[in-house]
Amino acid sequence: MNPFLYHIPTKVYFGENQLHHLGEELAKFGKRVLLTYGGGSIKKNGLYDTILKEIQAANLEVYELSGIAPNPRIESVRAGAAICKEKQIDVILAVGGGSTLDASKFMAAGAYVDHDPWEFFSKNAPIEKAVPLVTVLTLSATGSEMDCGGVVSNLETQDKLGRLATPLLPKVSFLDPTITYTVSPYQTACGTADILSHIFEVYFTTEKDLYMLDCFMEGMIKTVLRYTPIAMKDPTNYEARANLMWTSSWAINGFVNGGKEHDWSCHPMEHELSAIYDITHGLGLAILTPRWLEYCLDETTLPKYVQFGVNVFGIDDTLEPMTIAREAIKRLSDFFFNTLQLDDTFTKVGIKAEDIPLMARKACGGGTLEGFKPLNQKDIEAIFTKCI
Amino acid sequence: MNPFLYHIPTKVYFGENQLHHLGEELAKFGKRVLLTYGGGSIKKNGLYDTILKEIQAANLEVYELSGIAPNPRIESVRAGAAICKEKQIDVILAVGGGSTLDASKFMAAGAYVDHDPWEFFSKNAPIEKAVPLVTVLTLSATGSEMDCGGVVSNLETQDKLGRLATPLLPKVSFLDPTITYTVSPYQTACGTADILSHIFEVYFTTEKDLYMLDCFMEGMIKTVLRYTPIAMKDPTNYEARANLMWTSSWAINGFVNGGKEHDWSCHPMEHELSAIYDITHGLGLAILTPRWLEYCLDETTLPKYVQFGVNVFGIDDTLEPMTIAREAIKRLSDFFFNTLQLDDTFTKVGIKAEDIPLMARKACGGGTLEGFKPLNQKDIEAIFTKCI
Repeated sequence: MNPFLYHIPTKVYFGENQLHHLGEELAKFGKRVLLTYGGGSIKKNGLYDTILKEIQAANLEVYELSGIAPNPRIESVRAGAAICKEKQIDVILAVGGGSTLDASKFMAAGAYVDHDPWEFFSKNAPIEKAVPLVTVLTLSATGSEMDCGGVVSNLETQDKLGRLATPLLPKVSFLDPTITYTVSPYQTACGTADILSHIFEVYFTTEKDLYMLDCFMEGMIKTVLRYTPIAMKDPTNYEARANLMWTSSWAINGFVNGGKEHDWSCHPMEHELSAIYDITHGLGLAILTPRWLEYCLDETTLPKYVQFGVNVFGIDDTLEPMTIAREAIKRLSDFFFNTLQLDDTFTKVGIKAEDIPLMARKACGGGTLEGFKPLNQKDIEAIFTKCI
Repeated sequence: MNPFLYHIPTKVYFGENQLHHLGEELAKFGKRVLLTYGGGSIKKNGLYDTILKEIQAANLEVYELSGIAPNPRIESVRAGAAICKEKQIDVILAVGGGSTLDASKFMAAGAYVDHDPWEFFSKNAPIEKAVPLVTVLTLSATGSEMDCGGVVSNLETQDKLGRLATPLLPKVSFLDPTITYTVSPYQTACGTADILSHIFEVYFTTEKDLYMLDCFMEGMIKTVLRYTPIAMKDPTNYEARANLMWTSSWAINGFVNGGKEHDWSCHPMEHELSAIYDITHGLGLAILTPRWLEYCLDETTLPKYVQFGVNVFGIDDTLEPMTIAREAIKRLSDFFFNTLQLDDTFTKVGIKAEDIPLMARKACGGGTLEGFKPLNQKDIEAIFTKCI
């Protein structure tokens, strides 16, 4: 077990009717607010009006940047960074899901540099400072509301790249489960696939782990398995939405990692699908995950599958370990493709076999993903091929 | 489910060999350090020397206050607050278990007021500011390293009272499991009883709860049940000490509470035992807990016992609910009194029946503890009487 630093100072207002704290929290950072959001669904559901009222009641100046797309584009980041500089923005208020939040993080960092913000990704340019970020979450998925990372797409170069940096951590996040009542069953399912993948990327490891963190991860997986179908059938079920929302944050805020050092696997693979095909991140993950688990299953990795199958799905622990492992993968596939009704192949979402070598090479950067099981380009091609 | 605010900005260095960050962290707050500790075990085991070296390497001035007792006394708090004022202390470095940490929190607050620090407890005097606190934990138990509360005893008035206040939250805590290798089996067992009680005070509720938090609490309970006997038999088992240590922080840092509003039960009851008899807090909790659970068991509270018995102890869920509940309490008693070999009655630890009415009255302040099941003075007397 490796030593680690745990530090998540983000303040989270969780629950219904907490937005009346928004004005006071924004005002702590200054007068000039940049409000960022996506395609405008917040105007339809009334959230935009609520937020503007809070901002105005606190006597703050507000500037806006809307139209941030899913798989957010570097163009939005550039535009936001420019507004921050020009208007001397004191705080960014990002209202949306992971895409709006991620893009806003790099606007916040871009405000303090002279170079193109894409260099944060392409050249690993330093991120030493950022405009303070406050978020209002509208989708339970990426965990961007309580972590210091983000992913941005560049359609020109067909890249979708991530970056972590402490100054990007939101200062305050508002998590009101009722705001997610309008999320469609399909987007709820995709969000859940993302949450599960965040947990799996850490849980499936051959590194020695803290048992208490494994228990927590298994608890979060069970939470998501239990409440996603409920939220899909009964979108205004508070209990379901609240459990999914708080789990989305804790799946990726760093707590469960506890010093583990292995690379992630499915996320880098999926980013290449989204980079070229612009598909929903969670959908790509759902298609990949069971195939990745099948591919990684061997005598070395087997014990983790058994732990997963027994503790999460309650599979009889007296069965043969390999039987338990296969049954666990099968149940997970059933959850993604039957319970959540997500598409189960590349073909169904339009991804073509001819792009597999390129996507595989970019996923591992020509080297090896040192994850649960090391994966080089050939391994990733094999996993992608299973998805066709 | 109630809304809640989650905010734990404490920075935690977890794992072996992290103390080399101590100097740099202390220096962020200033030059003048007050080092607080207990009876001097840190001088025997070398920790004192290690810490002084780090402080000196960072060119800081160090003042000392030692002799902080278990069930820490208000006299220590007064002495520490006086040093803070006289020496214009910039940061307090508390090295020890919950007692040293708790006392140090109120020294830190006492530095900024003119009145006797006991008024923080007796008169609920405001705590608006405190000297920054850095901690090095030597015992996994109270969770004081990552929460903003503490408990202090006044032998003169026979009071042991707690207080919570945001400024008391440690800024940085060092959690090195190897530092707890020298903790005796008995103190390890008492620490575990305290950890379990922190979880039970929140877990056993009739309030509607977030399922994901219940899963986490069950995971922490299982962690403690699994690793305490290992740590008692094999004190230098890193895995066991690490699991106990990180669980001790998370049991009470506020995360698992998630908006629940009920009063705690066993802690206020136990504080009256310690206030008069100065017994070890965890030991008092171990004696009380199974009797409290027996007393609270009725048709209203039954479902939580069943959940506990099935999810934590793996009791067959097809049995009668009342049978599951009784079996769960029996297994918990077995754990405390057989596995951990803690004394199981008041008589064995010297608590006399004649003090029961007084202790019961003080535990509920003459009113009612609105906990898992409401408890007035008569209820508490009945629970205490079961412990004789």
